[in-house]
Amino acid sequence: MALTVSPLAPEKFPDMPPIAGVTLSSVAAGVRYKGRTDLFLAELAPGTSVAGALTKSLTASAPVEWCRANLAEGQARAVLVNSGNANAFTGKKGYEAAVLTAEAAGKAIGCPASEVFLASTGVIGELLPAAKVVEAIPALRQGLKPGSWAESAKAIMTTDTFPKGATRQTRIGDVPVTINGICKGSGMIAPDMATMLGFVFTDAAIPPAILQEILTRAVDRSFNCITVDSDTSTSDTVLLFATGNAAHLPIESAKDSHLRDFRAALEDMLTDMAIQIVRDGEGAQKLVTIDVTGAASARAARRIGLAIANSPLVKTAIAGEDANWGRIVMAVGKSGEWADRDRLSISIGGVEVAKEGAAVDGYDETPVVAHMKTRDIAIEVDVGVGRGRSRVWTCDLTHGYIDINGSYRS
Amino acid sequence: MALTVSPLAPEKFPDMPPIAGVTLSSVAAGVRYKGRTDLFLAELAPGTSVAGALTKSLTASAPVEWCRANLAEGQARAVLVNSGNANAFTGKKGYEAAVLTAEAAGKAIGCPASEVFLASTGVIGELLPAAKVVEAIPALRQGLKPGSWAESAKAIMTTDTFPKGATRQTRIGDVPVTINGICKGSGMIAPDMATMLGFVFTDAAIPPAILQEILTRAVDRSFNCITVDSDTSTSDTVLLFATGNAAHLPIESAKDSHLRDFRAALEDMLTDMAIQIVRDGEGAQKLVTIDVTGAASARAARRIGLAIANSPLVKTAIAGEDANWGRIVMAVGKSGEWADRDRLSISIGGVEVAKEGAAVDGYDETPVVAHMKTRDIAIEVDVGVGRGRSRVWTCDLTHGYIDINGSYRS
Repeated sequence: MALTVSPLAPEKFPDMPPIAGVTLSSVAAGVRYKGRTDLFLAELAPGTSVAGALTKSLTASAPVEWCRANLAEGQARAVLVNSGNANAFTGKKGYEAAVLTAEAAGKAIGCPASEVFLASTGVIGELLPAAKVVEAIPALRQGLKPGSWAESAKAIMTTDTFPKGATRQTRIGDVPVTINGICKGSGMIAPDMATMLGFVFTDAAIPPAILQEILTRAVDRSFNCITVDSDTSTSDTVLLFATGNAAHLPIESAKDSHLRDFRAALEDMLTDMAIQIVRDGEGAQKLVTIDVTGAASARAARRIGLAIANSPLVKTAIAGEDANWGRIVMAVGKSGEWADRDRLSISIGGVEVAKEGAAVDGYDETPVVAHMKTRDIAIEVDVGVGRGRSRVWTCDLTHGYIDINGSYRS
Repeated sequence: MALTVSPLAPEKFPDMPPIAGVTLSSVAAGVRYKGRTDLFLAELAPGTSVAGALTKSLTASAPVEWCRANLAEGQARAVLVNSGNANAFTGKKGYEAAVLTAEAAGKAIGCPASEVFLASTGVIGELLPAAKVVEAIPALRQGLKPGSWAESAKAIMTTDTFPKGATRQTRIGDVPVTINGICKGSGMIAPDMATMLGFVFTDAAIPPAILQEILTRAVDRSFNCITVDSDTSTSDTVLLFATGNAAHLPIESAKDSHLRDFRAALEDMLTDMAIQIVRDGEGAQKLVTIDVTGAASARAARRIGLAIANSPLVKTAIAGEDANWGRIVMAVGKSGEWADRDRLSISIGGVEVAKEGAAVDGYDETPVVAHMKTRDIAIEVDVGVGRGRSRVWTCDLTHGYIDINGSYRS
């Protein structure tokens, strides 16, 4: 089906500079889709460190298994990604298909297959046509160049309506460092884990164990705070590659004060990418930002936020532009986290609608109704028991979601 | 908005006999709706035992609080229920409004207010107009008669498209006993707890503590196995009243062998009622029965079943009549319960589509596609790790759900 671009899409794909040690390529391998690219390869300089955040699904895909096995070594020379087929629930044959593609890419680049990271996204339960991928690798290899970020982001799309990328300039010590990321995802989006495919590249020189510690925390505060439909994919993967081309001093700990700016820039960029995914939520007409305060802990606040963000009744009310805050109360109640009903307060669009467990005196719905008609909905909830806070993002639940998902395979 | 009757509705409301010790009445009190009844009263014989299953929501409504406080005594003389207003998140004033209505009903019937059980369903966050309820009580009292079950079921409806009731004839020892129930619910339906309003009446003579033990188990195997939208209400209430008019031998334990038939009949009837609620799921076009086997425990099996039943991607695929079993795999994976991906098997409509972690050899989709076009969808999943099993019910997720919930308050 033809998808129109989400009304919440950013105006344009960002200008993303090259990253020393990274070249990119994409081709149309015909894995499933016709008339578009569906295979993406990045070649990485020798010595590149890699860290990853992978789905916690117990029915994880073959590429996720492959990545999990090879992350321990922490070394990467390439990442190869196809769209159209998830290579999930394909049994031993599916795993063998994944291995074949990694071997072919490794041979083309001149590295062990174990240094080729893989990701696949699309239909579950159909065998990956490995031969089509293998046959496309020479052309892919030939097309490698430093700057084709937008093209790469397009090649990994499935039901996405726009390509997603982000870039940050930062420093480690006094040395300039760049971070670029591309990602895809619009449905089957929820923690944990990474909730989509995301590939992040930097020229920083950071050993694998430290890179992993930095990534885990940044993912927890970005991709793990978004939800479109509460469904966790079998394929969720975020990989962070550090080529080591930047000439900063050696990093020996994740707590190194020289890393402060880098870590902040990474978290900020991953949050930007995560919100782009919500903006492309299947059928999304509104971006919803939910701030929970006063919870027992940050974790409790996030769980309450996600209970609100995942409630079909809250999401349909927002789609209907109905300031039905009673459903927010319901969602807080079902979260299972401690909340004091009689100290609960709720604001929508900055207007307090309820406090101390009841509607505010003389509640005037007018400004709230006006806010509900906008594209960016802000909900604040204070649950009145502690100091834990969290921010999560979601979108509304509309007819578009049903249109897209009632006919995905056709 | 005008709602058309669900295509999954039973052909007719069952013929329900009177129950000794129970009289019923309903009136139009104008709590919120115009031109329909919205207030239901049952008067119960002196000595009636009561047991209850109440929402676990931490933002429970005032009537739920009232019931929780009074269930400890185990004695009931009446139950008073309004539709149109949930009296939830209404603070101290809401609780006072609930007390006022219980006092008025107690005075009319001649019992302490604490023996009047209450339930309210409808919009959250608006104060219950207690005066309207209190004013209607004389007319309600005057209308009490033994047999108006269908009228009572209608009075408690909100977005329901048909009234819901069930009846069973059973025995305790050799003595015939009747059980009747009415219920409402079509959205905001999920465990735990009771997931809707249900009022069950029997002429059995069972002490409160034993009645509670019996009800808890039966609810766990019926109402707690259904879901429409994963949202748990602030008002979920199931109350079971036993008037004691049947002349069977005294019951001294829930394990009494004389209770075997009664317990089975109660569970069967509550399951019937629970499925009626799913059949009236907001926007439902298909009833979905999910059998999970091979799980680590019955509890694990139910959790896996509900993960499938609550997945928006599974539910929209069913709405689209798409046999997209990959989404079932995804839902099993996200349930958090132990499953062996490589021993997982899935059948749809009795046809095996996947086994041992992959599509069956030579999978022919034709019979499965035909099954997906029917009203009753059967999904069987064996997760290959143990002997735990559970059956859960849900409905598909359609445009109708969005229509209803995007404009509920208007």
